Amino acid sequence: MDGEPLRVGLLGGGTVGSQVARLILEHGDDLAARIGRPLELVGIVVRNLDRPRPGLPASLLTTDAEGLVTREGIDIAIELIGGIDPAQDLILKAMSHGASVVTANKALLAAKGDELFGAAQHAGVDLYYEAAVAGAIPIVRPLSESLVGDEIQVVMGIVNGTTNYILDKMTAEGMDYQTALVQAQDLGYAEADPTADVEGHDAAAKAALLASLAFHTRVRGDQVHREGITGVAPQDIRAARGLGCVVKLLAVAKLLDDGQISVRVHPAMVPNTHPLASVKGAYNAIFVEAAAAGRLMFLGPGAGGAPTASAVVGDLVTVARNRSRGVVGPVQPMYNDHEVAPMGLVTTRYFVRLRVQDEPGVLAGVAGVFARHHISVQDVQQTPAGGKAGDASAELYLLTHEAKEADLLECVADLQASPQVQAAVRFMRVEGM
Amino acid sequence: MDGEPLRVGLLGGGTVGSQVARLILEHGDDLAARIGRPLELVGIVVRNLDRPRPGLPASLLTTDAEGLVTREGIDIAIELIGGIDPAQDLILKAMSHGASVVTANKALLAAKGDELFGAAQHAGVDLYYEAAVAGAIPIVRPLSESLVGDEIQVVMGIVNGTTNYILDKMTAEGMDYQTALVQAQDLGYAEADPTADVEGHDAAAKAALLASLAFHTRVRGDQVHREGITGVAPQDIRAARGLGCVVKLLAVAKLLDDGQISVRVHPAMVPNTHPLASVKGAYNAIFVEAAAAGRLMFLGPGAGGAPTASAVVGDLVTVARNRSRGVVGPVQPMYNDHEVAPMGLVTTRYFVRLRVQDEPGVLAGVAGVFARHHISVQDVQQTPAGGKAGDASAELYLLTHEAKEADLLECVADLQASPQVQAAVRFMRVEGM
Repeated sequence: MDGEPLRVGLLGGGTVGSQVARLILEHGDDLAARIGRPLELVGIVVRNLDRPRPGLPASLLTTDAEGLVTREGIDIAIELIGGIDPAQDLILKAMSHGASVVTANKALLAAKGDELFGAAQHAGVDLYYEAAVAGAIPIVRPLSESLVGDEIQVVMGIVNGTTNYILDKMTAEGMDYQTALVQAQDLGYAEADPTADVEGHDAAAKAALLASLAFHTRVRGDQVHREGITGVAPQDIRAARGLGCVVKLLAVAKLLDDGQISVRVHPAMVPNTHPLASVKGAYNAIFVEAAAAGRLMFLGPGAGGAPTASAVVGDLVTVARNRSRGVVGPVQPMYNDHEVAPMGLVTTRYFVRLRVQDEPGVLAGVAGVFARHHISVQDVQQTPAGGKAGDASAELYLLTHEAKEADLLECVADLQASPQVQAAVRFMRVEGM
Repeated sequence: MDGEPLRVGLLGGGTVGSQVARLILEHGDDLAARIGRPLELVGIVVRNLDRPRPGLPASLLTTDAEGLVTREGIDIAIELIGGIDPAQDLILKAMSHGASVVTANKALLAAKGDELFGAAQHAGVDLYYEAAVAGAIPIVRPLSESLVGDEIQVVMGIVNGTTNYILDKMTAEGMDYQTALVQAQDLGYAEADPTADVEGHDAAAKAALLASLAFHTRVRGDQVHREGITGVAPQDIRAARGLGCVVKLLAVAKLLDDGQISVRVHPAMVPNTHPLASVKGAYNAIFVEAAAAGRLMFLGPGAGGAPTASAVVGDLVTVARNRSRGVVGPVQPMYNDHEVAPMGLVTTRYFVRLRVQDEPGVLAGVAGVFARHHISVQDVQQTPAGGKAGDASAELYLLTHEAKEADLLECVADLQASPQVQAAVRFMRVEGM
């Protein structure tokens, strides 16, 4: 292969980093042929030099991250250490020293996208991040290039494998949340501290990146309405089944009629007939609806060392191709400034579950509350609550047509205040019906 | 928007062309913001100027294709007339006059890819073709960029909506092929002359393009083993159901252990649990298996004016961005020269159906024939053939483990020659089990 090697610095030697190093070292000839120039891995930053790292050449390991990214002649820095600090600083330093950057850091991009893309443009380098959203699933290029001539209306995805695994277990085996979480932790699908996954922080960062790409408007992670799965009860799962639905943690980015956008992460009931409903275990999937293209779906492994490394090395090859030709890739311009709609203005369908006294007139009363809040009910089911003998209570399940969240919340508050309602009124959004 | 407009010439004002023109004309401001420069549609080539074309400005219409592509200052030519001649000549002329080209012409690319990509490189212009494979589904960029750091092992897709619609009807409603075809024609899903679809020519061209991208080896359409769906019988559909499968027309590109590649289009049984099995109607889907990324699937509308136009305009924006920055996009280098394996060397699983005399020893005899050809049988089912009373015949259904096609064909020939076999022995490949 002709040409000087392109020099690559790798920040992070963990699950993903070690797989990235393996791909670069084992497939060097193929990658060189695809790029037009060879790659040279010049250093791998790790936290602890003493830990054994099979497959990683000891001569490449270093703890000096700043030294690596500012070393003379580094062409591309790959950032896989995660978090805001020191990742942000290292990326900015690498760029200001002329290196292009590949990162999988969704939290950083969702928090500091403007600064980072601005710095890349200023330095005349690339900043690529396919691995930051949905692991190995190609979604950044499809949104920013393949669909760039279209008007994207909805992006809706299962973008967190941990929560999908837990909800799957609750659905398939009737487990409660806590039992499913512990099993996921035992199998390595959930972290010891599962907060980032189960509270939806990880999904919210991805939702922000997806919304930014789809709507040409920079959306930050902290602008995303976020609800996790810790409150999902076995009754919700069973009720979903009765509706022909499954419960999924969805990341939703939607263009609203008034030009605002809704960006949110929350559990939702999804009809079994929807392509997202059949996404199992640690798989991820992203559903896209565009004015001309229609309905598309992208499915694949959303996490894991090798799949994430595949996306990182795909970016590495693309960035290296650009660099060897002396160009940078296109950047999705953020020329729109759609407002992120407050959650109260969002419309969707709702499933509402409440326990009432089983006596004449109660259904009429409940229906009246919905009507007062201008919420149209599509379907009502009433079942005995199945409590102790002589228990005169019943469960009501209601499915609404599209309603505004603010109206629904007021309706629920009114229901809660009604003397005939015996327990906390629960609701869940229904998407894709 | 700053900068001179980029001048676009459109060849073709039919179903796709008119949608492309509509997107360019109606979404000019958005496209300009995404590109960084405005687009100007300077001409639309049609065959017949007298046909009314609502939405297309009469002042842009022309019948002079050569005049348009060689006009001074054309930046991008969009070729949507299809076929080899005169499309090839017009594309080459456009390039030699300095224009980049966007095309949806799978037949041309599969036949003349080497010449066309060579000419683009020689002229220093782009040749983009996302719309040529699977309509609106982004697959060219995912294979040539997102997954370019990985080793792709299998690409397997439903890439022809017409045949998928017909097979779906045969499956869901028990129709025979001819009835389903006529219905597809009535609904506009099949052409009056359906040959290109039902004989697999369209799918074979797409298989060639997918294999070329996946394996970095130029594969031509005429190197693809091709069988259409005209021979699929209701009995095959029913037998598939008995196996927990559906019949699909698959385009398969597989890297074999010996470094050869198998590229083929044929009907196959696919297990209901496989993601491709649930692809309905005129939808397309492409399943990809890569060493690091694992199993991915891309799903969406495979044809139609608006979806195909979405892919064309996505390419148009990408090419226009390149042009406004004075660069060309990366081209997937064809640095490998994997041989296309002869069909006889391909291994897969097979379903074999035969009618035999219902008498003791016949099953042992049949099993012996398979054993003689070193084909391991996983499952045998025997059912009365359900003919006239006193008819002493039975249907045998056999599912094999992986076997070499040449062995299977010899086995079938031997079975056919057996005096106990009463009718034509039928077989169908089984993929994804």
